[in-house]
Formats: sequence, C-alpha cells, structure tokens
Amino acid sequence: MKKVAIVGASGYSGEELVRLLLQHPRVELTAVTSRQYAGQKVAQVFPKFAHHPGAKALRFTEPNAELLAKQAEVIFLALPHGVAAEYAVPLLQLGCQLVDLSADFRVKSAAVYKEFYTHDHPAPELLEKAVYGLPEVYREQIRDASLVASAGCYPTSILLPTIPLLRDGLIKPTGIIADSLSGVSGAGRTVKLDYLFVECNESVRPYGFPKHRHLSEIEQELSLAAETAVTVQFTPHLIPVNRGILTTLYLAPANHFSTASELNELSEKVAACYKTVYADSPFVRLLEGEALPDTKNVTGGNFIEIAWRLDARTGRLIVISALDNIVKGASGQAVQSFNIMCGFSDTTGLV
Amino acid sequence: MKKVAIVGASGYSGEELVRLLLQHPRVELTAVTSRQYAGQKVAQVFPKFAHHPGAKALRFTEPNAELLAKQAEVIFLALPHGVAAEYAVPLLQLGCQLVDLSADFRVKSAAVYKEFYTHDHPAPELLEKAVYGLPEVYREQIRDASLVASAGCYPTSILLPTIPLLRDGLIKPTGIIADSLSGVSGAGRTVKLDYLFVECNESVRPYGFPKHRHLSEIEQELSLAAETAVTVQFTPHLIPVNRGILTTLYLAPANHFSTASELNELSEKVAACYKTVYADSPFVRLLEGEALPDTKNVTGGNFIEIAWRLDARTGRLIVISALDNIVKGASGQAVQSFNIMCGFSDTTGLV
Amino acid sequence: MKKVAIVGASGYSGEELVRLLLQHPRVELTAVTSRQYAGQKVAQVFPKFAHHPGAKALRFTEPNAELLAKQAEVIFLALPHGVAAEYAVPLLQLGCQLVDLSADFRVKSAAVYKEFYTHDHPAPELLEKAVYGLPEVYREQIRDASLVASAGCYPTSILLPTIPLLRDGLIKPTGIIADSLSGVSGAGRTVKLDYLFVECNESVRPYGFPKHRHLSEIEQELSLAAETAVTVQFTPHLIPVNRGILTTLYLAPANHFSTASELNELSEKVAACYKTVYADSPFVRLLEGEALPDTKNVTGGNFIEIAWRLDARTGRLIVISALDNIVKGASGQAVQSFNIMCGFSDTTGLV
Amino acid sequence: MKKVAIVGASGYSGEELVRLLLQHPRVELTAVTSRQYAGQKVAQVFPKFAHHPGAKALRFTEPNAELLAKQAEVIFLALPHGVAAEYAVPLLQLGCQLVDLSADFRVKSAAVYKEFYTHDHPAPELLEKAVYGLPEVYREQIRDASLVASAGCYPTSILLPTIPLLRDGLIKPTGIIADSLSGVSGAGRTVKLDYLFVECNESVRPYGFPKHRHLSEIEQELSLAAETAVTVQFTPHLIPVNRGILTTLYLAPANHFSTASELNELSEKVAACYKTVYADSPFVRLLEGEALPDTKNVTGGNFIEIAWRLDARTGRLIVISALDNIVKGASGQAVQSFNIMCGFSDTTGLV
Repeated sequence: MKKVAIVGASGYSGEELVRLLLQHPRVELTAVTSRQYAGQKVAQVFPKFAHHPGAKALRFTEPNAELLAKQAEVIFLALPHGVAAEYAVPLLQLGCQLVDLSADFRVKSAAVYKEFYTHDHPAPELLEKAVYGLPEVYREQIRDASLVASAGCYPTSILLPTIPLLRDGLIKPTGIIADSLSGVSGAGRTVKLDYLFVECNESVRPYGFPKHRHLSEIEQELSLAAETAVTVQFTPHLIPVNRGILTTLYLAPANHFSTASELNELSEKVAACYKTVYADSPFVRLLEGEALPDTKNVTGGNFIEIAWRLDARTGRLIVISALDNIVKGASGQAVQSFNIMCGFSDTTGLV
Repeated sequence: MKKVAIVGASGYSGEELVRLLLQHPRVELTAVTSRQYAGQKVAQVFPKFAHHPGAKALRFTEPNAELLAKQAEVIFLALPHGVAAEYAVPLLQLGCQLVDLSADFRVKSAAVYKEFYTHDHPAPELLEKAVYGLPEVYREQIRDASLVASAGCYPTSILLPTIPLLRDGLIKPTGIIADSLSGVSGAGRTVKLDYLFVECNESVRPYGFPKHRHLSEIEQELSLAAETAVTVQFTPHLIPVNRGILTTLYLAPANHFSTASELNELSEKVAACYKTVYADSPFVRLLEGEALPDTKNVTGGNFIEIAWRLDARTGRLIVISALDNIVKGASGQAVQSFNIMCGFSDTTGLV
Repeated sequence: MKKVAIVGASGYSGEELVRLLLQHPRVELTAVTSRQYAGQKVAQVFPKFAHHPGAKALRFTEPNAELLAKQAEVIFLALPHGVAAEYAVPLLQLGCQLVDLSADFRVKSAAVYKEFYTHDHPAPELLEKAVYGLPEVYREQIRDASLVASAGCYPTSILLPTIPLLRDGLIKPTGIIADSLSGVSGAGRTVKLDYLFVECNESVRPYGFPKHRHLSEIEQELSLAAETAVTVQFTPHLIPVNRGILTTLYLAPANHFSTASELNELSEKVAACYKTVYADSPFVRLLEGEALPDTKNVTGGNFIEIAWRLDARTGRLIVISALDNIVKGASGQAVQSFNIMCGFSDTTGLV
Repeated sequence: MKKVAIVGASGYSGEELVRLLLQHPRVELTAVTSRQYAGQKVAQVFPKFAHHPGAKALRFTEPNAELLAKQAEVIFLALPHGVAAEYAVPLLQLGCQLVDLSADFRVKSAAVYKEFYTHDHPAPELLEKAVYGLPEVYREQIRDASLVASAGCYPTSILLPTIPLLRDGLIKPTGIIADSLSGVSGAGRTVKLDYLFVECNESVRPYGFPKHRHLSEIEQELSLAAETAVTVQFTPHLIPVNRGILTTLYLAPANHFSTASELNELSEKVAACYKTVYADSPFVRLLEGEALPDTKNVTGGNFIEIAWRLDARTGRLIVISALDNIVKGASGQAVQSFNIMCGFSDTTGLV
C-alpha cells in the first residue's frame, strides 16, 4: 500500500483522482487539499463518493508541503499551471515522488514555456528532471521518475495516434492538422459566463486557435518522434457534452498512393505499425472494420480509441481518436504513470 | 410608434426584450442600459441580432433616470428585485410608464414582500399603484396602468390553469400542489458554479422548496380568485434544457366524482370553464384529445399550453401547463402588457 | 464462481448487466442471448467493453432454454413483459434460478396484471412463487427464492422512501402523490420517433398518466406496508438526460403539526425511522443538512439518495429520491438480488 | 400573393418550410402533402403552429401532381433524393415552378450523381435546366429558373466561405480540408437506432467519410469557382445539438506569407474579398475583431457567420462558418431562392 495525497482536489480532475485513488487496491489516500473546502469531509463535497469509508473519514485540508511530505510518499498535483511548480519544488526536496497534472513541467524549454504560457517558468531547474507522462511512449523513464509531468488531454489524443506513424516514417512531418472537439469539463470547474449551461448547450464553437498552449508539448513530442522540427495546425472546439475529446487528424503519407493495391499496402503498414507499437498497451483500442471512434465508448474509462482511413481521392491518411479528457486525458493517465512508478501493472485500479 | 427603453438589458430576459422590441412594428427602441456593456453596440454584445439595423446603431449606456425619461415613453425594467424599485420611483415621477419584470411590485403587501424577499420593500407607497402583469387576468387594469409588475415565470404557469377553476368553484382552494420543472435560463445569466454546463447537464434536482419566493405572488393571486386564503405546495426542479417550464398541478375537484358519467360531466365543466375564460386569449392553447403539453412546442413563443386529466381512481384533477420561461414567463408577457397599455392588440410583435 | 447467463442482453438494461457481471468477482458469464446480434462478439456490439477478455471471447447466441440451463445456474431475463414468462417457465423446470427484470412476476394477482398490462398473464401459476426483488424490503425472501421479480425503476424510487413511513404509521395511507422525472433510457433501446434525439432534447413532457403500468406494483407494495388498500397518484415525465429518476413524493403526516416543536419532533421521528430501517442497507443514502438529491450523484452506481422536508405552511412531508434507472432501477438491483440469492454480500461487484 | 405547396412536409425541413411559409407575407400556403399524416390538420401534427389560422385550416393530403399543379404556382419538394425527381418531372410539365430541397438536381452530371448516390439518375434530362440554389452565388440564374436545386447544408457551409477566395485566386485549389460538425436534425426525422437520444447525447462521432455524398456538389461548385478540378477532404461529425453546422476550413493561401506585414496584407485582401462579394448579401455575417462563429448565434435564422484567421506558424488560412442546417442549410435557403424567383427581396418572410 502506497500512501498518497492529492493537492488541489476540488476541480474536475482532482475529483476524478479522488474517485480513482479511493478505489485503488494499492493506495491509501491520506490527504486531499483544497483551500476552498478545507475542513469539510470528502463525502460532503462530493456526494457521489459518500458511500466510501475513505470519503467519510477524510477531510480536505489547507495545502502544506511539510505536512504533506509526512503524510504521503507520492503526491498528485492537480493545480493550475504556475501554481503547481510552487508545490513541486519543496515537495521534491522533501523526498516525495510527484505526478503533476498541470502543464508546468511538460515542456523541456523554459523559453517555449514562456512563449506559450506568457510568464517566466517558475522552476526551470526541474525541467530536465521531469519525465513527460505519456505512459505508452515513456514507460521506461516513468518507472524511475521522481517528477512525472502528466500529458495534457488534447496532446494525448494527438500524440498517441501520430507518434508511431512519424517514428516509422509512414507520414511526412509537415502539414499535420489536428481538429479537436472537447467536452466542457475540459475548461475545468471554472466559474465563467462562457461555461454556463445556457451558453454551452445547443452551441458549438472554436476557441483558442491558431496558437493554443497545448501546441508547446504537442510539437515538442512530435518533433522528437520525427527527429525534425514539427509544426502543427491545431483547432479545438467546445461541444455540449460533459466529457470526451474527439480528434480528427489530417496526415500526409510519406509515399504517394493512388491505386487500390498501393492503398492496401499502405493500409497494412499503418495497421502493422499500430499493432506492433501498442501490442502491450492495455488502454489503446485499435478499431477494426467499419467501427469508428465515439466518445460515448470511452467516457468513464482510461481508454483511447483509434481508427484510420486512407482516402485515395486526396492521398491523405485520416486518423480519428477518442478519449475521456478527465480520465485518459488527465487523472486516469496520471494514475497509470503512478502505477508504473510503483511497479504495479498499468491497469491496477483503472479497470 | 412608441419610444421605448430597456433598463438592464444584458440578462436573458433583457436580451429577449431586445429581440422582441427590435422587431416590434410599433416600437422605436431608443435606449438600452447595461453597466457591464456600456459603450458597446447591441450587435456586438448579442451577435444574434447583428443583422438588425437597430442593433447596429444602438449602444448600451449607463442607466440614468433623467436621460431615460427623455428618451422613452415606456420603460421596461429587467433588473434584480430590490434594484428595480430604485429606478421605478424616479421614472414614474418623471412621467414614464413602466413594465417591471422583477418581483418588486408583484405583491400588494410590504409585509409579505419582506417575509419572502428578506428585506424591507424599497418603495411600499407604489405597491397599490402597481397592476399585476398577467394580461389574461388583468387586461382592463393593465390598460390604464402606469406601473405593470409583470408576472413571474412559475406563477404564470400555475395561475393561468388554476385561477379559472377556483373562480368557477370547480376545485377546492385547499391542498393545491404545483410541481414545476424549469430550464436553466430561469436562473438568469448568473455566473455561479451551480449553473455551469457540467453541473447541470445529465442532472435533475429540486431546489428552493418548500418556501420559494414566487409563492408570495402565487398565493396572493389564488387567494383573490378563491376569495379565501390559499396556501400552495410548490416544488421547483432544475432540468437540463435552456428554456421552458412544465408545471404539473394536483387539484381536488369541489365535487366528488367516481362514476364514468360523473367524470364526463366534470370533464365537460372543466373544458367549458377554460374555453369560456380563454376564448379571447390568443396565447392560451387548450390541448384536446390525447395531446399533452411539451416545452418544445412553446419555446421561442409567447404561448402557454394547458391540458388536464381527471383520475377516477384518486378523485383528482391533474392539470399540466408548458410555457417558455423567458417569453410567456418574462419578456413576451411584458411586451403583451405593453401592447395592452398602448392600445395595440395583444399579439402585436409577438407572433 | 457462479455460472450466469443473460437472456435478452442487447437493450440498455441487458448491456448494463453485461457490464456488471463481466466485472463481478464471483461470476462467470457463460452466455448472453440476443436474436438481433446472434453470432457477434460482445466486444463488437458493445465497444465500451472491448478491453474485457470476457467480452472478446463471448458471442451472442439465439436464446434456447435447454442450452441455457446447461450453461448457467442463475439466469437474468432482460426481456419485454409477456416474453419473459415464456422463458421463465421452462428455465425454472430445468432447475435454474431466475432474476427477471421484466414486470411479468411483480404483481401477485393475475387480474391486476391483466388490468394494467392488457393481456392475460402468461404463467399465473408462478406468481405465488416469485419474490418481489426489492432487496431492502425482501432480503430474507430473496435469499431462498428461485424466481426474483426485480422491482421496476419508478417503483423503487417510490417504495424505498415510502414503505418505512407507512409501516411506522408516520404518514397516512391516503392521498399519496408521486411526481417522477426519468431519463430517456427508461424507454429502452426502442426505435421510435418519440425517442429520437431531436424529439427529446430541449423538451420536457409528461406521459402515461394517470394510470401508468408501474402503479400495479407500487400500490401492491404500499398496500402491504400500510396493511390497507393504497391508491397512488403517479405522474411520470420524460426529461432530456440519458439516465436517472428523480421522484418527488407529497405525503400527509399521520399527525398534524404546525408549531416549530411539533415540526422538530416529527422531523426526528422521520429521521429515526429511515436510519433504523436502512441502517444495514449499503445502497441507501440518507442526505443530511441542506443536501438534496441530484441524479448526477447517483448515475452509474446502485445508490438511492433520499431527503425530506416538512412544510409547516401546508402540513405536508415532501420526500425526494434519486437513483439511476438502469442500475438501482434495473440491472444493479437485479445483481444485488443475485448476490443475496448466492449468499454474497449485497455490494459484491457493485461498488 | 403566390400560391405555394409543399410536397413531403412532415420531415424537419418540411416542418420548417411550413413555419416559414405560413408567416411569409407574400405567400398563400394552399397544400401540404404527407403520406403519413394525410387527413390530419397541420395544427395537430405540429402543435407548435397551432395558433396560426393557416395551420388550423390546412390538412395534409396525399401527394398528387395534377391536383398540386392546380393548387399552387410554386412547389417546394422536401423529399428524399430519388423520390423528388418523380414529382419534379410531372410538376414541371404541368407548368409549376419548383424549389427542390433534395440532392436530385444539384449535380450537373448524371455520372457523378450515380457515383455518389449509387443509382441511375431518375431524370437526367432535367439536370441542365436546374439552377443550383445558392442565392449568394447564383442570384441571376435563380431569378429565371423553373427548377431550383436548393444547395445542401454542408455544401452551403463550405461553399460560401470558399468560393470567393478561389475566384479571387487568394487560395490554392488544392489541399482543401473541410471539417464539419452537425446537429442531429441533419439526419432528418429518421427513426433509426443511431439517432435515439441516448445514442447521441454525451456522444461525438465522425461518420460518412472520406467520401460523403455532399462532396459531389461541393467539388462541382468549387471546381467552377477555381476553373480547375478541385478535390476536397471532407469529414462530417455528429454532435449532440438539435441544429447547427460548424465548419472549419483549412486552406492554403496562394502566396506564401510569414512576416507580420505579409500577414497583414493578406488579411486585408481576404477581408476585402469577402466584403466586396457579400456586400449585398443580407444573410452573410462577416465577423470582426475577436468574434468567432457559434452555432447558437445562427440557429433559428437564415444567417451564416464567417470568420477567418491566418496562422503565420503554418502558413495556412483557417476559415470557420456557422449556420442553421435546417434554415440556411435547407428551408430558409429554399425560401430565399423562392423570393428571388418571385422578384421579392431576399429577406421577405425570413427576418
């Protein structure tokens, strides 16, 4: 049993971490912090968990690094970017292992961080130490990490389908387009006019493009996979569902195809590429036949669905992925990294 | 052409007033006020109306009673209770006619107001002057009013089906139960955690019972109709739609019925009562045959649907009503009263 | 490990049974039948379960009683009423234990069945044998049952809050009103115009009243609790959520109350009644303080939330309950009964 | 006053035509046909219109070409493709003017029709006669047309933003990508499992790609604008809203840009192109400043919102459009063409 704490447990990914860690067979959840709810029981704040003995016993506390370091071996940070680093620095010094769900340690370059997040990086000395928390790609590094920077929701939906194709040279590193649709929980439990029910229901709209913050980690990781600088066109849209991201990727195969046999050959290569890379990845579902990703098949779980189509008319490869932005896109993925850090199987507490 | 202004035009009912008054054939909308949007054009703040020449020309201003009195003959107040009275006092003194959408002038008793709204009434001397803005009931009084206190959304859904039955002595004045379901716009454009998309979607919940503020006007009007003090059981629920109120009323017929012929006789009396009372009410739709109210048949319009069933097993009369809380429950009804004040037909600008 | 089969596994409650039984630690799911999907793998038909080894291995088959009796000890019937009985008769003769999710064996009287379901009961000789599958009320009888008639969704939301009050004589058996709101999955995976997205979204409507079929079991069970014939006013409404039932009950306390001290006294009695009766019921959540039921706190789980308020103005007791119509209202409750039949704890495989 | 009929008035676009034509100041709606509802009054089938005198008087009839030709001068066909042509042939011979909302006469080539709709064209001799019903592009031809093939919903969302840029040579005719999101009414009032509330709510999914039928008209019209064969990548997605299409277009500017001044120069050219072309198009809203299209700003009306962004990082032009698939994407656009055919202003009966 690992002693575990959550700092910032009152947002949507904090709440999901509470759910996952309360039911995790190898975890004792010893502390959850929230400035807003300090003093209240978890069962009060999240009636959904009221039946769980842990939720009845546990109370939210004010965050305090020294105390947390005594209470837990591994600490999840579910805080806004900028704030996460403030806790990461002392907690690492006090010997804790960290899984950070914020964007603070995802990019390797403090300059890139500043470009996209518009303030100086609060702890640049830790950037090298941090491991990018995408378990399907960095399992080995996560195993030995003391600081995991859990990958973002949009980035996960883009990187898992694209990295294998780039590594195998099946697609060109240029001209990549990612068109993403996200449920409203992606905005966090943020009390803003834009996220009121009436403003979101019966509405669909793009936002935050063409230079969304998540591009910093997306392009970093694709560039590493391609071994050349990759620039991505990324357009997120807000759609009226609670959860789920659906990403449509427009990719250019490295080799031209137009005949049926060329198409079949390429199709088999793509299939083989994915099957090989994800053979031992329990959360990656490669769809077959006519099946296409649908967010309703993944919400609530830590899975990503991936399907692809070759279009002989345009010469493009279109890949579609679907995941739950709060689970595989945030808290579930963080627990998956935690499992790897602890030597548990990926799926412990997640299926 | 009447010169008209709206004070507090940035909430949902304010926005709907803008829509209705911009397209009203007998209205020149000369001023709209909003502290938050002062200086901006209506077309910017409400892109929905961007094509309308009026919306392109008109800018939001800070509310100023003296200026408004020069700009408009009739002024709609779409302000929170308590605040509305602050504008009503000077505007009436300056000779304007007012249609107030708040609850400030709906009850006749300052004591009842204080009991339900928990603060002293800000202008008790105006209570007698005000006419309750339920056109189907108070058409004559509205015609000559200088201050119309437009009826609330839940009250309208309860009063229109119940008042005729009480007046005709068809139901007992005791034991009335109103169970209501409202869309989220009923909470106004209020930036609170409770009204975030993720908190409302895939959720249904009761709130504000057993003593909701709207009971003050509901019981006042039913008591007048029954000529005896009426107490009502009222339970509102929040449901994940933008607009619409559906109210289910549980009523006790004055005379017992159990045989088929007694049921038929009573059924004909109820039908005759409604048909007579609402013969000249263009916005009341009495459903026939198997048809039942559905909010989707009334949203966007100023109609109320009413249907009823007698239950021989329980001896009760069940009446169901549906309306759009922002139109017949607020802005449409206010415009209907305005039409009557101006000598226009009820439906001018509303169909 | 119990060998278990599901007959009619392609509807919403069938799908939920598959989910619950695949992850049940004491169950081996050996057969699932569906005329429509016979031959296809569970993983194909329900992509949501595609990761589960059981779903990859198991194929839907045509229903065949003799074969099923060889494959399973306990069989869940998730079939329409009328059809369920056709399978129940031979399966019981072949020695299987049955948990039937249909309405076929819920009422004790073949005449009442005919009155409400408008056809002769297909197997009246089994009615006496069947145990009503409401575990919080009939735990002892379920333990030894060979045929459990799992309680309906609306009935569960009404009976669990009402039976204890009637048994303790805290409320009158007359004048009970249940106003219920249900998500669209309550209609089953029924391909009808009424249940299309566009017909349900942004819509709220009553249906099937005043004499809904579920009244047959509701009144039967309340009459047993009250030891006198009970007639109930029940109005169901369809609301645009996938899952969840919220029921508002209007009840008349047996003793009049009006003073604060009478109210407090009665309030304590109600609280004590519920706490005593449900002390050992892991799925009943009695809400305290200001908390009110919300379907979003129960969807996905087997819990029922219950809260109550006394209204000194009207003299009524209002009780509100919330549950997931597919879990506590159908498949979860069926598994709970199964657990009791097998001597497992109620919560096995359900939390 | 024009005498007008609607053939196939029971689907979503048929219903919207009824709404628009009942309130059209220059139209007398003399006949509406529906096999399913023949004999019933419009007010019964569509309770939403129950207040309209026309809806109370008018009954659905069986479709009969000879009778229709006597009843109406202009006839709207709101029928499935393949079926529409069956009525078009005799009605044209009988001297009626037609506005066809189906896909039957949108493409000029019977071979292309067969390729995309998988059956022989039912009346190829009419293809040349038909005018493509996109009023902003073909106003002059529509004026004199006897057969208008009203443009499809997705095509309108793609063509209006793209055609001017191609005509002015501002973008390359190659590599065009259109990623579209549509509300469920786009599927029509089709009673299929896929469109049930529970299957669509809390779900997002792609469908019908990479070779959707609408590509036939999209590519035909873009090729005409570009004066070269254009192939388009088009991916439609189904999202849980009743109405609305949001399309994100990924376009390659004809001239490379990377510096700020090149970007500004191109930006001004794009703005000038749109402003010039759509100066007299009352339904095209070019958004300015920070504003981005949102389906909630266009649903219920005949407008299309268009905004664009240049991305110096990728060298692409991204254009976003939003419209109501049932109004500007179907019935509103059809009425707009009708207005032009009759010599009315575009906006008659539409604002």
